[in-house]
Amino acid sequence: MENIKQYVQENKERFLNELVDLLKIPSVSADSAYAHDVITTAEEVKRRLEEAGCDTVELCETPGYPIVYGEKIIDKDLPTVLVYGHYDVQPPDPVELWTSPPFEPVIKATTIHPEGAIFARGACDDKGQMYMHVKAFEYMMKNDCLPCNVKFMIEGEEEVGSKSLGWFVEQNQEKLANDVILISDTGMISNTQPSITTGLRGLSYVEVEVTGPNRDLHSGLYGGAVANPINVLTKMIASLHDENNHITIPGFYDKVEELSAEERAEMAKAPFSLESYKRALDIEDVYGETGYVTNERNSIRPTLDVNGIWGGYTGEGAKTVIPSKAYAKISMRLVPNQDWEEITELFTKHFESIAPKAVKVKVTPHHGGQGYVTPIDSIGYQAASKAYADSFGIVPIPVRSGGSIPIVALFEKELKSKTIMMGFGLDSDAIHSPNEHFGVFNYLKGIETIPLFYKYFTELNTK
Amino acid sequence: MENIKQYVQENKERFLNELVDLLKIPSVSADSAYAHDVITTAEEVKRRLEEAGCDTVELCETPGYPIVYGEKIIDKDLPTVLVYGHYDVQPPDPVELWTSPPFEPVIKATTIHPEGAIFARGACDDKGQMYMHVKAFEYMMKNDCLPCNVKFMIEGEEEVGSKSLGWFVEQNQEKLANDVILISDTGMISNTQPSITTGLRGLSYVEVEVTGPNRDLHSGLYGGAVANPINVLTKMIASLHDENNHITIPGFYDKVEELSAEERAEMAKAPFSLESYKRALDIEDVYGETGYVTNERNSIRPTLDVNGIWGGYTGEGAKTVIPSKAYAKISMRLVPNQDWEEITELFTKHFESIAPKAVKVKVTPHHGGQGYVTPIDSIGYQAASKAYADSFGIVPIPVRSGGSIPIVALFEKELKSKTIMMGFGLDSDAIHSPNEHFGVFNYLKGIETIPLFYKYFTELNTK
Repeated sequence: MENIKQYVQENKERFLNELVDLLKIPSVSADSAYAHDVITTAEEVKRRLEEAGCDTVELCETPGYPIVYGEKIIDKDLPTVLVYGHYDVQPPDPVELWTSPPFEPVIKATTIHPEGAIFARGACDDKGQMYMHVKAFEYMMKNDCLPCNVKFMIEGEEEVGSKSLGWFVEQNQEKLANDVILISDTGMISNTQPSITTGLRGLSYVEVEVTGPNRDLHSGLYGGAVANPINVLTKMIASLHDENNHITIPGFYDKVEELSAEERAEMAKAPFSLESYKRALDIEDVYGETGYVTNERNSIRPTLDVNGIWGGYTGEGAKTVIPSKAYAKISMRLVPNQDWEEITELFTKHFESIAPKAVKVKVTPHHGGQGYVTPIDSIGYQAASKAYADSFGIVPIPVRSGGSIPIVALFEKELKSKTIMMGFGLDSDAIHSPNEHFGVFNYLKGIETIPLFYKYFTELNTK
Repeated sequence: MENIKQYVQENKERFLNELVDLLKIPSVSADSAYAHDVITTAEEVKRRLEEAGCDTVELCETPGYPIVYGEKIIDKDLPTVLVYGHYDVQPPDPVELWTSPPFEPVIKATTIHPEGAIFARGACDDKGQMYMHVKAFEYMMKNDCLPCNVKFMIEGEEEVGSKSLGWFVEQNQEKLANDVILISDTGMISNTQPSITTGLRGLSYVEVEVTGPNRDLHSGLYGGAVANPINVLTKMIASLHDENNHITIPGFYDKVEELSAEERAEMAKAPFSLESYKRALDIEDVYGETGYVTNERNSIRPTLDVNGIWGGYTGEGAKTVIPSKAYAKISMRLVPNQDWEEITELFTKHFESIAPKAVKVKVTPHHGGQGYVTPIDSIGYQAASKAYADSFGIVPIPVRSGGSIPIVALFEKELKSKTIMMGFGLDSDAIHSPNEHFGVFNYLKGIETIPLFYKYFTELNTK
């Protein structure tokens, strides 16, 4: 694999153009208006896998969007790597805050990405990182150096809870049998300090509806005498955190594992500047749970965030109305051992219990998933660590991420194999935000690093 | 005026058709998209006043929408009635909750309006009630029984705070000189128990904006570590009421007049059924300030209601985002003696003071107005009382309304005359809500009652 660097340099332009084409298709899984584009993206990914050298590639039908499956089996006795990624993307809104249209990719240099970054929805999460694997596979095929078997499973519902994938994995344990699962859907600390994500938070996502009177009312004639669902909703949501920003849902923390002083000291070693963190977000102060620092609050601690709220008159000018209904979308990030279905139930019971008699409350669970922690002494982790060390010339640090890839815990349960998260994005890449981007350096480094993982993973397995 | 009943019956169809035509024009003053329709409505009202018999009618230019002014001076020595009304309407949203399009009026019978009601935005508030005065005037002109002078001042910005009207009144004290101001922009208890509004609440309407990070963030990577503007906004709004639903803004109640036990006992005499009130709104319980009953909470007590709230992802499906901003529209109903500008200032100072360092807060005052109370021993009130007694055969009761007509207090200050509020709508007419309507009975009764007010007011004045 000594010619990998050279191969990447020679094909750089093509690699970029192929990704740009993929990013032009608005595969927003959360909004049914984009259904056709999501399907088109799946077909495109299928074509790319065939071109890269997979033997069999298929669009597997599911209750939701199809899963693209492809494989290259060179020897039943060699280990098998299962690559997981997703071709769907987050909704682009608020679109007006994008400096260039979300589905018209442009490459621009930034302070953090002097060699340029690709700006588009999905550039980093996850089309860009998923496509690195397709190109890394192409390299190994073209240069006849694929050391083991590989299977690709690329889904189209990750941003809406991977509902069909869970069903698919349960149905196809034989077909998906593997020795390690490889995912690039996370980030690393910086381009000069690679890191490997060893933990993910779980997620419980719910929508709540508070109904007051059966119709919108004049706030003059009824104001003060009837429960205003917005006022009530704000009171209910506010009560979900106490003055120390602890979540007040009974039982919420029961299964949360407290890290030891040693583990917390280990975490504290990761390079972090509170000042530049605040500067980057233009905030005067951070805000979170008493007793924990920023890097703990967003990784080893569970959270409850309102992701959306709406009710009443939100147009131009003024309307003196007491609305009939108010709504909120609320998500809770969970840590390992917290069961997302149990937490969803605790939330629902509690939220209904704190509603005053004057309103009706409806809680609708959206989706969720378990948290995950991977051991750093596994062969998979060791292989990944060596791969980064080779390509970056720096040994990567293990870190816990605050994000969630709900399906990872299910992989371990159903497929009995560990997942290695080789992320190449940066927190500043604005995934899920306007102006999402992915560094050209990171994209190419990923393509360069992945084949090395295959090499080391095969070697360590066959020792 | 003995033939008034007959005249109304003979012209019933025409009166209805003329109102329907007026209701077809969507004069929504809050939304600039309707600007042209608002102007068209003003021109239409001008034409109707000319046809009814006004000598001079003009569209008076203002910094905002024009004010329609018309007059009929028959004798400088006779008293002058100044009729005030507005031709603009509330926004129709949520439009999907209307059973018929808001600007395509239809007449349907209801339980409360067996003789039919006109369903359309503005049917009751205030096109229908304003137009009763035009038709009552037409009757007096056609039958040569106008007993005094009359001036009409119909504005187009009542639903957005009457900004230009204040300016107009200050500029035209001479032109608007009068002995009493007559307004039909309130309601009465029921079709079998007329009432006259003797008090109005003041209003302070503000919009608040809470800004957290400078861009939307991924709730996994940042959740728990950064202030979520929606969570913070809900906490701030929730804190504006204590556990007794008292408003917590320092100084808010300082100037609130407490009614005497006698006055409260007097109020309690007005017919009211809590059960049917709850049934009509489909609520299990009412909700409000401890220590006061429903009829007090919505009339003699100040309130704070969120009229609109929005932030984050409110579309279909799920988006795990921490938004950069969250917003709310908040209005406070005030009682006599509370100064709306002072309250707006108190709110602003307090709201900014309770914001955590981790967010930025912006409070934008929208508009407001003072509360008002009119004495029931005035000639104007006596004349109105006799008029209702004649047309309904029942003596009306004085009641305090929870609504606001900010301009009324300014009329007294600038024009030195009392305002009489002869309302003919019902609380159940759903003004400011989907399916606003106005009873045909009420519309015609208004046209029948108003000339009698002119008669008695002139008699009592010239005694």
